[in-house]
Amino acid sequence: MLSEFRQDIISGAWIVVVPNRRGRPHQFKKERERIIVPEKDCPFENPQKSGNPPPLLIFSKPKSNDWFLQVIPNKFPIFEKFGECLTEKKIGPYKMIAGIGAHEVLITRDHNRHFALLEKDELELVFKAYKERYLALSKEYCINYILIIHNHGEKAGASIFHPHSQIFGISIIPPDVNSSLVGSSNYYHKNGQCAHCKVIEYESKNGLRTIFENKNFIVFCPFAPRFNYEIRIFPKFHSPNFEKTTNSQLKELAEAFKEALYRLYKNAGDPDYNFFIHTAPVSSEHIEHYHWHIEILPRISEQAGLEIGTGIEVITIPPEESAKVLRQ
Amino acid sequence: MLSEFRQDIISGAWIVVVPNRRGRPHQFKKERERIIVPEKDCPFENPQKSGNPPPLLIFSKPKSNDWFLQVIPNKFPIFEKFGECLTEKKIGPYKMIAGIGAHEVLITRDHNRHFALLEKDELELVFKAYKERYLALSKEYCINYILIIHNHGEKAGASIFHPHSQIFGISIIPPDVNSSLVGSSNYYHKNGQCAHCKVIEYESKNGLRTIFENKNFIVFCPFAPRFNYEIRIFPKFHSPNFEKTTNSQLKELAEAFKEALYRLYKNAGDPDYNFFIHTAPVSSEHIEHYHWHIEILPRISEQAGLEIGTGIEVITIPPEESAKVLRQ
Repeated sequence: MLSEFRQDIISGAWIVVVPNRRGRPHQFKKERERIIVPEKDCPFENPQKSGNPPPLLIFSKPKSNDWFLQVIPNKFPIFEKFGECLTEKKIGPYKMIAGIGAHEVLITRDHNRHFALLEKDELELVFKAYKERYLALSKEYCINYILIIHNHGEKAGASIFHPHSQIFGISIIPPDVNSSLVGSSNYYHKNGQCAHCKVIEYESKNGLRTIFENKNFIVFCPFAPRFNYEIRIFPKFHSPNFEKTTNSQLKELAEAFKEALYRLYKNAGDPDYNFFIHTAPVSSEHIEHYHWHIEILPRISEQAGLEIGTGIEVITIPPEESAKVLRQ
Repeated sequence: MLSEFRQDIISGAWIVVVPNRRGRPHQFKKERERIIVPEKDCPFENPQKSGNPPPLLIFSKPKSNDWFLQVIPNKFPIFEKFGECLTEKKIGPYKMIAGIGAHEVLITRDHNRHFALLEKDELELVFKAYKERYLALSKEYCINYILIIHNHGEKAGASIFHPHSQIFGISIIPPDVNSSLVGSSNYYHKNGQCAHCKVIEYESKNGLRTIFENKNFIVFCPFAPRFNYEIRIFPKFHSPNFEKTTNSQLKELAEAFKEALYRLYKNAGDPDYNFFIHTAPVSSEHIEHYHWHIEILPRISEQAGLEIGTGIEVITIPPEESAKVLRQ
């Protein structure tokens, strides 16, 4: 059976699906051990006691005296505030820009309840907090892109066990976001339609890669994934901007998101994963061709020389098969 | 101390250097265990006895009766031969191409002597074999790019412990190669000079990131690396094509390569790594702007949501510091 190159319709990226590689010998430990770090050593159990600054935002659940989530500035920021915006600097033949921006952490209360185990109404609070911090950061200057991410587990690059998300305010438009903007703009001008809307319509009708749908959201495995069991969540209505999602839509999003994560946890062996929200840049105009969404990226295998040397990701489970497993 | 965005002069990719992140808490196991797989269970100890096809190429060392290296077809190929070249196929709104090409494995004799521990004259044989297989594959049809890679260790995606390299014949020009070709072509047309030659000249004179030089090769840490301790090896003479390297140049290349790998092993804690050769596409014309080279990519940390969501790699050790450690 020949492998298949598949192209992402938006970014133009190529991946290769190689289903017949699954039987090859593998000499290393495949089982991931989930390392449980004791609560007493956890810097996020009582964030302020561990030397973190006071929260930028704090949410409690109805009838509860304890906090349910809080957002704090990252103690070890990748991007941070500075008095002024700085421009490009030349160093010999090279270019450099200072990493000005913001880096925040959203912490949920329970040390051991990772996101797949949260209830829908709890996830709704998480998305409300994401939106609130997005709106706050979008008013600060030098921030042109806001990225919300979550790393779950060691293989996904999490450095702290306690569930936490990160919110980045970035001064440049990230390269991957940029290539998706260019791709969706090109498609829009060529076909007079949003490429994402076209994909959503096709996936919903075709059903082969669909996992879940409610009135306003769809959950499916993409045709050209970068990771095995990759999942994407899209609003079915056209919208470039995550932050414009209404509260009633956030409720539906939480439901779709719970379905995605819980199925990954239950049906696909609880893999480590990253997820992120891709939305339009801050205060961007003429961006009608873009369509915000969430990507969930399980980290089951390592990138090797082929992937790193080509930019072509190798997939051993066809997304049609992943969707079948996740739908069960 | 603010972090720094740095741009790769050729690919245009941005990375971010965040030196002040090294002190942050890290709750997971950091020490890599090198798993020694016993020779008796190794499919590469006696490749043909383990059901592999006869070698496509076999080299012995002078005065030795045993083989020193052999190249065999991969038993679980990602790309394979097919009767004819196949063109793009449409599936709904998507595009697909069959994965036709070649996938070979180069195995060196010693189970436990990984590449950093090979002698210069042994590495010279390895590079000669790479070149010979490159030339053989470049004559086959449907192969437009030949990628030579090596995965060392589990974190680098190696599935077999025994040292082995892989040679891929690929029908498409890989996206990462393509963006470097576009970048070097743009630079050439703007500046009337090869961008790589400019970088080599600057690094050699500046010395801050240089690790080793001989007459024809230079080893340095790039200004905008994708990984901590990343190393690149360039011929100092302008050449787009690895396969045109003469035998006496390969001798010097083996020396430079040994210096790079051994210093990584000795001074940087023997990390898992990938390396690959980036060279011009097969039978490409008008490619005078390109300059072949080797990239060595240590796999110390995991890509997390920021990297995967933006395409911006996060570096915690500035390359100037990596070079200092590796020069010692």
